Amino acid sequence: MSSALLKDGERIDDLQRNGYKIIQNPEKFCFGMDAVLLSAFAYTRKGERVLDLGTGTGIIPILMAARYPLAQYTGLEIQEDMADMAGRSVILNDLASKIRICSGDLKKASNLFGPESFDAITVNPPYMNEDHGLKNPSEPKAIARHEILCTLEDILKESSRCLVSGGRFFMVHRPHRLAEIIEKMKKYSLEPKRLRVVYPREEAEAKMVLIEASKGGGSWLKIEKPLIIYDDAGKYKKEIYEIYEN
Amino acid sequence: MSSALLKDGERIDDLQRNGYKIIQNPEKFCFGMDAVLLSAFAYTRKGERVLDLGTGTGIIPILMAARYPLAQYTGLEIQEDMADMAGRSVILNDLASKIRICSGDLKKASNLFGPESFDAITVNPPYMNEDHGLKNPSEPKAIARHEILCTLEDILKESSRCLVSGGRFFMVHRPHRLAEIIEKMKKYSLEPKRLRVVYPREEAEAKMVLIEASKGGGSWLKIEKPLIIYDDAGKYKKEIYEIYEN
Repeated sequence: MSSALLKDGERIDDLQRNGYKIIQNPEKFCFGMDAVLLSAFAYTRKGERVLDLGTGTGIIPILMAARYPLAQYTGLEIQEDMADMAGRSVILNDLASKIRICSGDLKKASNLFGPESFDAITVNPPYMNEDHGLKNPSEPKAIARHEILCTLEDILKESSRCLVSGGRFFMVHRPHRLAEIIEKMKKYSLEPKRLRVVYPREEAEAKMVLIEASKGGGSWLKIEKPLIIYDDAGKYKKEIYEIYEN
Repeated sequence: MSSALLKDGERIDDLQRNGYKIIQNPEKFCFGMDAVLLSAFAYTRKGERVLDLGTGTGIIPILMAARYPLAQYTGLEIQEDMADMAGRSVILNDLASKIRICSGDLKKASNLFGPESFDAITVNPPYMNEDHGLKNPSEPKAIARHEILCTLEDILKESSRCLVSGGRFFMVHRPHRLAEIIEKMKKYSLEPKRLRVVYPREEAEAKMVLIEASKGGGSWLKIEKPLIIYDDAGKYKKEIYEIYEN
Protein backbone atom coordinates (compact mmCIF):
# COMPACT_ATOMS: atom_id res chain seq x y z
CA MET A 1 0.00 0.00 0.00
CA SER A 2 2.72 2.43 1.05
CA SER A 3 4.60 2.45 -2.21
CA ALA A 4 1.50 3.41 -4.21
CA LEU A 5 1.37 6.61 -2.20
CA LEU A 6 4.89 7.63 -3.25
CA LYS A 7 5.92 9.81 -6.18
CA ASP A 8 9.35 10.14 -7.77
CA GLY A 9 12.06 11.28 -5.35
CA GLU A 10 9.92 10.72 -2.28
CA ARG A 11 10.62 8.42 0.63
CA ILE A 12 8.79 7.30 3.76
CA ASP A 13 10.34 8.01 7.16
CA ASP A 14 9.25 6.42 10.42
CA LEU A 15 8.29 8.99 13.07
CA GLN A 16 8.74 6.40 15.87
CA ARG A 17 5.53 7.56 17.44
CA ASN A 18 2.18 5.72 17.29
CA GLY A 19 3.63 3.90 14.28
CA TYR A 20 3.19 7.10 12.27
CA LYS A 21 5.21 7.74 9.13
CA ILE A 22 5.84 10.77 6.96
CA ILE A 23 6.40 11.15 3.23
CA GLN A 24 9.27 13.48 2.41
CA ASN A 25 11.23 14.50 -0.66
CA PRO A 26 14.83 15.33 0.30
CA GLU A 27 15.17 17.43 -2.87
CA LYS A 28 12.38 19.67 -1.64
CA PHE A 29 12.36 19.83 2.14
CA CYS A 30 12.70 17.53 5.13
CA PHE A 31 11.43 18.45 8.57
CA GLY A 32 13.95 19.38 11.22
CA MET A 33 14.29 19.55 14.98
CA ASP A 34 12.39 22.85 15.04
CA ALA A 35 9.16 21.12 13.95
CA VAL A 36 9.65 18.43 16.58
CA LEU A 37 10.33 20.94 19.35
CA LEU A 38 7.34 23.06 18.34
CA SER A 39 5.02 20.07 18.43
CA ALA A 40 6.28 19.29 21.95
CA PHE A 41 5.96 22.91 23.09
CA ALA A 42 2.43 23.39 21.77
CA TYR A 43 -0.58 21.76 23.37
CA THR A 44 -4.23 21.30 22.53
CA ARG A 45 -7.32 20.29 24.45
CA LYS A 46 -10.09 17.87 23.65
CA GLY A 47 -12.25 18.99 20.78
CA GLU A 48 -10.16 22.01 19.86
CA ARG A 49 -9.74 23.16 16.28
CA VAL A 50 -6.06 23.61 15.44
CA LEU A 51 -4.61 25.24 12.33
CA ASP A 52 -1.03 24.69 11.13
CA LEU A 53 0.06 27.46 8.79
CA GLY A 54 2.43 26.52 5.97
CA THR A 55 2.23 22.88 6.96
CA GLY A 56 4.67 21.61 4.31
CA THR A 57 4.95 17.83 4.74
CA GLY A 58 2.22 17.96 7.39
CA ILE A 59 4.75 17.02 10.06
CA ILE A 60 3.37 19.29 12.78
CA PRO A 61 -0.30 18.18 12.66
CA ILE A 62 0.82 14.54 12.44
CA LEU A 63 3.10 14.88 15.48
CA MET A 64 0.42 16.87 17.32
CA ALA A 65 -2.20 14.23 16.52
CA ALA A 66 0.08 11.63 18.08
CA ARG A 67 0.34 13.64 21.31
CA TYR A 68 -3.17 15.07 21.39
CA PRO A 69 -5.46 12.71 19.45
CA LEU A 70 -8.68 14.39 20.61
CA ALA A 71 -8.29 17.65 18.65
CA GLN A 72 -9.12 18.40 15.02
CA TYR A 73 -6.21 19.53 12.86
CA THR A 74 -6.08 21.55 9.65
CA GLY A 75 -2.86 22.00 7.69
CA LEU A 76 -2.72 24.83 5.16
CA GLU A 77 -0.06 24.75 2.44
CA ILE A 78 0.36 27.05 -0.57
CA GLN A 79 2.51 24.71 -2.68
CA GLU A 80 0.10 22.26 -4.29
CA ASP A 81 2.56 19.42 -4.68
CA MET A 82 3.53 19.74 -1.01
CA ALA A 83 -0.12 19.82 0.06
CA ASP A 84 -0.71 16.72 -2.06
CA MET A 85 2.22 14.94 -0.40
CA ALA A 86 1.03 15.94 3.10
CA GLY A 87 -2.43 14.64 2.23
CA ARG A 88 -0.92 11.29 1.24
CA SER A 89 0.91 11.13 4.62
CA VAL A 90 -2.42 11.66 6.35
CA ILE A 91 -3.91 8.76 4.40
CA LEU A 92 -0.83 6.61 5.01
CA ASN A 93 -1.35 7.09 8.78
CA ASP A 94 -5.11 6.60 8.61
CA LEU A 95 -5.55 10.08 10.12
CA ALA A 96 -8.16 11.47 7.71
CA SER A 97 -10.72 11.74 10.50
CA LYS A 98 -8.38 13.96 12.52
CA ILE A 99 -6.32 15.93 9.99
CA ARG A 100 -7.39 17.71 6.84
CA ILE A 101 -4.81 19.24 4.50
CA CYS A 102 -5.89 22.26 2.47
CA SER A 103 -4.11 23.89 -0.42
CA GLY A 104 -4.16 27.67 -0.18
CA ASP A 105 -2.44 30.90 0.78
CA LEU A 106 -2.11 31.54 4.52
CA LYS A 107 -2.56 35.25 3.88
CA LYS A 108 -6.19 34.38 3.06
CA ALA A 109 -6.76 31.87 5.85
CA SER A 110 -9.55 33.87 7.51
CA ASN A 111 -11.38 34.02 4.19
CA LEU A 112 -10.86 30.32 3.56
CA PHE A 113 -11.93 29.12 7.02
CA GLY A 114 -13.81 32.10 8.43
CA PRO A 115 -12.66 34.51 11.13
CA GLU A 116 -12.26 33.23 14.71
CA SER A 117 -12.60 29.65 13.54
CA PHE A 118 -9.62 28.13 15.40
CA ASP A 119 -8.74 27.60 19.07
CA ALA A 120 -5.03 27.24 18.43
CA ILE A 121 -2.53 27.88 15.64
CA THR A 122 0.90 26.38 15.11
CA VAL A 123 3.49 27.69 12.66
CA ASN A 124 7.09 26.93 11.75
CA PRO A 125 7.54 29.87 9.38
CA PRO A 126 10.34 30.93 7.05
CA TYR A 127 12.99 32.46 9.33
CA MET A 128 14.91 34.66 6.95
CA ASN A 129 13.94 38.10 5.72
CA GLU A 130 17.30 38.97 4.21
CA ASP A 131 17.20 38.85 0.44
CA HIS A 132 20.88 38.15 -0.14
CA GLY A 133 22.01 34.78 -1.46
CA LEU A 134 18.65 33.73 -2.84
CA LYS A 135 19.35 31.99 -6.11
CA ASN A 136 16.13 30.08 -6.75
CA PRO A 137 13.23 31.78 -4.98
CA SER A 138 10.71 29.36 -6.49
CA GLU A 139 12.35 26.29 -4.93
CA PRO A 140 10.52 24.62 -2.03
CA LYS A 141 13.57 24.88 0.24
CA ALA A 142 13.84 28.61 -0.41
CA ILE A 143 10.09 29.06 0.20
CA ALA A 144 10.37 27.18 3.50
CA ARG A 145 13.33 29.23 4.69
CA HIS A 146 12.88 32.74 3.28
CA GLU A 147 9.98 35.16 3.45
CA ILE A 148 9.16 34.82 -0.24
CA LEU A 149 5.45 34.00 -0.18
CA CYS A 150 4.62 35.44 3.25
CA THR A 151 6.19 37.64 5.91
CA LEU A 152 6.17 37.37 9.69
CA GLU A 153 3.66 40.21 9.73
CA ASP A 154 1.34 38.36 7.30
CA ILE A 155 1.40 35.34 9.61
CA LEU A 156 0.67 37.30 12.79
CA LYS A 157 -2.06 39.43 11.22
CA GLU A 158 -3.86 36.47 9.71
CA SER A 159 -3.41 34.30 12.81
CA SER A 160 -5.03 36.96 14.95
CA ARG A 161 -7.98 37.01 12.57
CA CYS A 162 -8.35 33.21 12.57
CA LEU A 163 -8.15 32.72 16.36
CA VAL A 164 -11.02 32.93 18.81
CA SER A 165 -10.59 35.37 21.68
CA GLY A 166 -8.19 33.72 24.14
CA GLY A 167 -6.98 31.38 21.40
CA ARG A 168 -3.36 30.23 21.52
CA PHE A 169 -0.65 30.88 18.94
CA PHE A 170 2.49 28.70 18.92
CA MET A 171 5.56 29.52 16.84
CA VAL A 172 9.18 28.47 16.52
CA HIS A 173 11.57 31.09 15.18
CA ARG A 174 15.11 32.43 15.36
CA PRO A 175 16.35 34.54 18.27
CA HIS A 176 17.62 37.35 16.06
CA ARG A 177 14.03 38.25 15.18
CA LEU A 178 12.55 38.00 18.69
CA ALA A 179 12.23 41.76 19.21
CA GLU A 180 10.37 42.13 15.92
CA ILE A 181 8.21 39.08 16.74
CA ILE A 182 7.16 40.51 20.10
CA GLU A 183 6.53 44.00 18.72
CA LYS A 184 4.33 42.65 15.90
CA MET A 185 2.54 40.13 18.11
CA LYS A 186 1.45 43.02 20.33
CA LYS A 187 0.39 44.99 17.25
CA TYR A 188 -2.04 42.19 16.37
CA SER A 189 -3.28 41.53 19.93
CA LEU A 190 -1.28 38.31 20.27
CA GLU A 191 0.12 38.72 23.78
CA PRO A 192 3.34 36.73 24.42
CA LYS A 193 2.70 34.44 27.39
CA ARG A 194 5.36 31.74 27.31
CA LEU A 195 8.88 31.69 25.90
CA ARG A 196 11.35 28.88 25.76
CA VAL A 197 14.86 29.63 24.59
CA VAL A 198 16.69 26.78 22.84
CA TYR A 199 20.46 26.62 23.28
CA PRO A 200 22.60 24.06 21.39
CA ARG A 201 24.86 23.77 24.45
CA GLU A 202 25.02 25.47 27.83
CA GLU A 203 27.95 27.56 26.61
CA ALA A 204 26.40 28.56 23.28
CA GLU A 205 24.15 31.39 22.21
CA ALA A 206 20.53 30.55 21.49
CA LYS A 207 19.58 29.15 18.10
CA MET A 208 15.80 28.91 18.41
CA VAL A 209 12.92 30.39 20.37
CA LEU A 210 9.57 28.75 21.06
CA ILE A 211 6.83 31.22 21.84
CA GLU A 212 3.19 30.99 22.88
CA ALA A 213 0.87 33.98 22.62
CA SER A 214 -2.74 34.43 23.64
CA LYS A 215 -5.14 36.49 21.55
CA GLY A 216 -6.22 39.38 23.75
CA GLY A 217 -4.35 38.05 26.80
CA GLY A 218 -2.96 40.17 29.64
CA SER A 219 0.67 41.22 29.79
CA TRP A 220 2.66 38.58 31.70
CA LEU A 221 5.42 36.53 30.07
CA LYS A 222 6.90 33.38 31.55
CA ILE A 223 10.37 32.43 30.35
CA GLU A 224 10.54 28.70 30.96
CA LYS A 225 13.63 26.72 31.92
CA PRO A 226 16.27 26.65 29.18
CA LEU A 227 16.04 23.94 26.54
CA ILE A 228 19.63 22.79 26.05
CA ILE A 229 20.11 20.27 23.28
CA TYR A 230 23.56 18.73 23.83
CA ASP A 231 25.45 18.01 27.03
CA ASP A 232 29.16 18.72 27.46
CA ALA A 233 30.04 15.36 25.89
CA GLY A 234 28.08 16.24 22.73
CA LYS A 235 25.20 13.84 23.47
CA TYR A 236 21.53 14.75 23.40
CA LYS A 237 20.32 15.79 26.83
CA LYS A 238 17.62 13.76 28.51
CA GLU A 239 14.77 16.09 27.61
CA ILE A 240 15.57 15.88 23.90
CA TYR A 241 15.39 12.07 24.07
CA GLU A 242 12.09 12.37 25.89
CA ILE A 243 10.68 14.77 23.29
CA TYR A 244 11.63 12.43 20.47
CA GLU A 245 10.27 9.39 22.27
CA ASN A 246 6.94 10.73 23.54
CA MET B 1 37.80 58.71 58.26
CA SER B 2 35.22 56.09 57.30
CA SER B 3 33.06 56.40 60.38
CA ALA B 4 32.67 60.17 59.89
CA LEU B 5 30.99 59.39 56.57
CA LEU B 6 28.33 57.24 58.23
CA LYS B 7 24.91 58.29 59.44
CA ASP B 8 22.59 56.45 61.82
CA GLY B 9 21.63 52.98 60.64
CA GLU B 10 24.24 52.88 57.90
CA ARG B 11 27.06 50.41 57.50
CA ILE B 12 30.04 49.98 55.18
CA ASP B 13 30.29 46.84 53.06
CA ASP B 14 33.40 45.69 51.23
CA LEU B 15 32.84 45.18 47.48
CA GLN B 16 35.95 42.97 47.21
CA ARG B 17 36.96 44.79 44.08
CA ASN B 18 39.73 47.41 43.85
CA GLY B 19 39.33 47.79 47.61
CA TYR B 20 36.07 49.61 46.98
CA LYS B 21 33.40 49.83 49.67
CA ILE B 22 29.77 50.87 49.70
CA ILE B 23 27.66 52.60 52.32
CA GLN B 24 24.26 50.98 52.76
CA ASN B 25 21.34 51.24 55.14
CA PRO B 26 19.63 47.86 55.54
CA GLU B 27 16.46 49.62 56.69
CA LYS B 28 16.26 51.40 53.33
CA PHE B 29 17.77 49.26 50.60
CA CYS B 30 20.76 47.03 49.98
CA PHE B 31 21.98 46.16 46.52
CA GLY B 32 21.36 42.67 45.20
CA MET B 33 22.71 40.25 42.62
CA ASP B 34 20.80 42.08 39.86
CA ALA B 35 23.03 45.17 40.25
CA VAL B 36 26.15 42.98 40.18
CA LEU B 37 25.01 41.09 37.07
CA LEU B 38 24.06 44.31 35.29
CA SER B 39 27.47 45.84 35.97
CA ALA B 40 29.10 42.71 34.49
CA PHE B 41 26.74 42.68 31.48
CA ALA B 42 27.22 46.36 30.62
CA TYR B 43 30.43 47.72 29.17
CA THR B 44 31.90 51.12 28.47
CA ARG B 45 34.77 52.43 26.42
CA LYS B 46 37.52 54.91 27.20
CA GLY B 47 36.25 58.44 27.63
CA GLU B 48 32.57 57.56 27.43
CA ARG B 49 29.93 59.40 29.44
CA VAL B 50 27.76 56.93 31.33
CA LEU B 51 24.51 57.69 33.18
CA ASP B 52 23.02 55.42 35.85
CA LEU B 53 19.34 56.16 36.36
CA GLY B 54 17.93 55.76 39.87
CA THR B 55 21.40 54.99 41.18
CA GLY B 56 20.33 54.40 44.81
CA THR B 57 23.46 53.58 46.80
CA GLY B 58 25.59 54.27 43.71
CA ILE B 59 26.46 50.59 43.47
CA ILE B 60 26.35 50.37 39.67
CA PRO B 61 28.66 53.31 38.84
CA ILE B 62 31.06 52.17 41.57
CA LEU B 63 31.19 48.59 40.23
CA MET B 64 31.43 49.90 36.65
CA ALA B 65 34.27 52.24 37.61
CA ALA B 66 36.14 49.22 39.00
CA ARG B 67 35.77 47.37 35.69
CA TYR B 68 36.06 50.31 33.32
CA PRO B 69 38.04 53.05 35.05
CA LEU B 70 38.48 55.18 31.92
CA ALA B 71 34.84 56.30 31.57
CA GLN B 72 33.02 59.14 33.34
CA TYR B 73 30.02 58.13 35.42
CA THR B 74 26.95 60.06 36.55
CA GLY B 75 24.46 58.60 39.04
CA LEU B 76 21.02 60.24 39.22
CA GLU B 77 18.87 59.65 42.29
CA ILE B 78 15.56 61.26 43.25
CA GLN B 79 15.69 60.51 46.98
CA GLU B 80 17.95 63.16 48.48
CA ASP B 81 19.11 61.08 51.44
CA MET B 82 20.03 58.20 49.11
CA ALA B 83 21.89 60.58 46.78
CA ASP B 84 23.73 61.97 49.79
CA MET B 85 24.70 58.47 50.90
CA ALA B 86 25.87 57.52 47.37
CA GLY B 87 27.96 60.70 47.28
CA ARG B 88 29.62 59.70 50.52
CA SER B 89 30.45 56.26 49.03
CA VAL B 90 32.11 58.03 46.12
CA ILE B 91 34.23 60.08 48.52
CA LEU B 92 35.00 56.99 50.62
CA ASN B 93 36.43 55.30 47.52
CA ASP B 94 38.26 58.40 46.30
CA LEU B 95 36.27 58.24 43.06
CA ALA B 96 35.15 61.87 42.84
CA SER B 97 37.14 62.37 39.63
CA LYS B 98 35.25 59.53 37.94
CA ILE B 99 31.78 59.52 39.45
CA ARG B 100 29.39 62.38 40.17
CA ILE B 101 26.13 61.77 42.02
CA CYS B 102 23.24 64.12 41.23
CA SER B 103 19.98 64.49 43.06
CA GLY B 104 17.03 64.77 40.70
CA ASP B 105 14.13 63.15 38.88
CA LEU B 106 15.07 60.79 36.05
CA LYS B 107 11.98 61.91 34.18
CA LYS B 108 13.79 65.24 33.71
CA ALA B 109 17.24 63.82 32.97
CA SER B 110 17.43 65.32 29.47
CA ASN B 111 16.64 68.75 30.93
CA LEU B 112 19.17 68.33 33.72
CA PHE B 113 22.04 67.09 31.55
CA GLY B 114 20.98 68.09 28.03
CA PRO B 115 19.70 65.82 25.25
CA GLU B 116 22.11 63.32 23.66
CA SER B 117 24.66 63.92 26.39
CA PHE B 118 25.49 60.27 27.24
CA ASP B 119 27.13 57.40 25.35
CA ALA B 120 25.65 54.70 27.59
CA ILE B 121 22.95 54.35 30.22
CA THR B 122 22.57 51.72 32.92
CA VAL B 123 19.43 51.15 34.97
CA ASN B 124 18.21 48.69 37.57
CA PRO B 125 14.63 49.99 37.72
CA PRO B 126 11.66 49.14 39.93
CA TYR B 127 10.34 45.85 38.57
CA MET B 128 6.76 45.87 39.78
CA ASN B 129 3.86 47.71 38.25
CA GLU B 130 1.15 45.94 40.22
CA ASP B 131 -0.33 48.22 42.86
CA HIS B 132 -1.52 45.52 45.25
CA GLY B 133 0.15 45.05 48.60
CA LEU B 134 1.81 48.43 48.76
CA LYS B 135 1.53 49.60 52.35
CA ASN B 136 4.13 52.35 52.51
CA PRO B 137 4.69 53.85 49.06
CA SER B 138 7.01 56.51 50.43
CA GLU B 139 9.51 53.98 51.81
CA PRO B 140 12.84 53.64 49.97
CA LYS B 141 12.37 49.86 49.55
CA ALA B 142 8.96 50.40 47.96
CA ILE B 143 10.36 53.13 45.69
CA ALA B 144 13.17 50.82 44.58
CA ARG B 145 10.83 47.92 43.83
CA HIS B 146 7.57 49.44 42.60
CA GLU B 147 6.83 51.95 39.86
CA ILE B 148 5.87 54.69 42.29
CA LEU B 149 8.04 57.60 41.14
CA CYS B 150 8.67 56.44 37.54
CA THR B 151 7.39 53.84 35.10
CA LEU B 152 9.22 51.65 32.60
CA GLU B 153 7.94 53.94 29.87
CA ASP B 154 9.33 57.04 31.64
CA ILE B 155 12.74 55.37 31.80
CA LEU B 156 12.81 54.32 28.15
CA LYS B 157 11.51 57.65 26.85
CA GLU B 158 13.99 59.70 28.85
CA SER B 159 16.88 57.31 28.13
CA SER B 160 16.29 57.68 24.42
CA ARG B 161 16.43 61.46 24.78
CA CYS B 162 19.64 61.37 26.82
CA LEU B 163 21.58 58.98 24.55
CA VAL B 164 23.60 59.93 21.50
CA SER B 165 22.67 58.15 18.28
CA GLY B 166 24.10 54.63 18.51
CA GLY B 167 24.36 54.99 22.30
CA ARG B 168 23.87 51.88 24.40
CA PHE B 169 21.18 51.23 26.98
CA PHE B 170 21.67 48.46 29.58
CA MET B 171 18.89 47.25 31.88
CA VAL B 172 18.15 44.39 34.24
CA HIS B 173 14.51 43.48 34.69
CA ARG B 174 12.08 40.64 35.31
CA PRO B 175 11.11 38.15 32.57
CA HIS B 176 7.39 38.68 33.04
CA ARG B 177 7.71 42.18 31.61
CA LEU B 178 10.00 41.34 28.68
CA ALA B 179 7.28 41.68 26.02
CA GLU B 180 6.35 45.12 27.30
CA ILE B 181 10.03 46.09 27.57
CA ILE B 182 10.72 45.15 23.96
CA GLU B 183 7.56 46.81 22.65
CA LYS B 184 8.32 50.08 24.44
CA MET B 185 12.03 50.01 23.60
CA LYS B 186 11.07 49.90 19.92
CA LYS B 187 8.58 52.73 20.47
CA TYR B 188 11.45 54.95 21.68
CA SER B 189 14.02 53.83 19.05
CA LEU B 190 15.95 51.69 21.51
CA GLU B 191 16.55 48.58 19.42
CA PRO B 192 17.16 45.40 21.49
CA LYS B 193 20.53 43.97 20.45
CA ARG B 194 21.62 41.59 23.19
CA LEU B 195 19.65 39.56 25.70
CA ARG B 196 20.90 37.35 28.48
CA VAL B 197 18.38 35.24 30.34
CA VAL B 198 19.22 34.48 33.98
CA TYR B 199 18.02 31.15 35.37
CA PRO B 200 18.45 30.24 39.07
CA ARG B 201 19.08 26.62 38.06
CA GLU B 202 19.08 24.71 34.78
CA GLU B 203 15.69 23.24 35.68
CA ALA B 204 14.08 26.52 36.77
CA GLU B 205 12.23 29.25 34.94
CA ALA B 206 14.05 32.52 34.38
CA LYS B 207 14.12 35.11 37.16
CA MET B 208 15.95 37.96 35.47
CA VAL B 209 16.75 39.33 32.03
CA LEU B 210 19.71 41.49 31.08
CA ILE B 211 19.13 43.51 27.94
CA GLU B 212 21.22 45.85 25.81
CA ALA B 213 19.61 48.17 23.28
CA SER B 214 21.12 50.55 20.76
CA LYS B 215 19.54 53.91 20.02
CA GLY B 216 18.55 53.81 16.37
CA GLY B 217 20.17 50.40 15.79
CA GLY B 218 19.11 47.85 13.19
CA SER B 219 16.86 44.92 14.00
CA TRP B 220 19.01 41.94 15.05
CA LEU B 221 18.88 40.44 18.54
CA LYS B 222 21.49 38.08 19.94
CA ILE B 223 20.36 35.86 22.80
CA GLU B 224 23.57 35.00 24.59
CA LYS B 225 24.36 31.75 26.39
CA PRO B 226 22.18 31.17 29.45
CA LEU B 227 23.36 32.60 32.75
CA ILE B 228 22.65 29.85 35.27
CA ILE B 229 23.33 30.81 38.87
CA TYR B 230 23.43 27.53 40.83
CA ASP B 231 24.63 24.08 39.80
CA ASP B 232 22.76 20.88 40.65
CA ALA B 233 24.45 20.76 44.05
CA GLY B 234 23.19 24.23 44.93
CA LYS B 235 26.60 25.92 44.59
CA TYR B 236 27.29 29.04 42.55
CA LYS B 237 28.40 28.16 39.03
CA LYS B 238 31.85 29.18 37.88
CA GLU B 239 30.68 32.24 35.97
CA ILE B 240 28.98 33.70 39.03
CA TYR B 241 32.21 33.38 41.03
CA GLU B 242 34.06 35.05 38.17
CA ILE B 243 31.56 37.92 38.01
CA TYR B 244 31.89 38.54 41.74
CA GLU B 245 35.67 38.30 41.66
CA ASN B 246 36.45 40.43 38.58
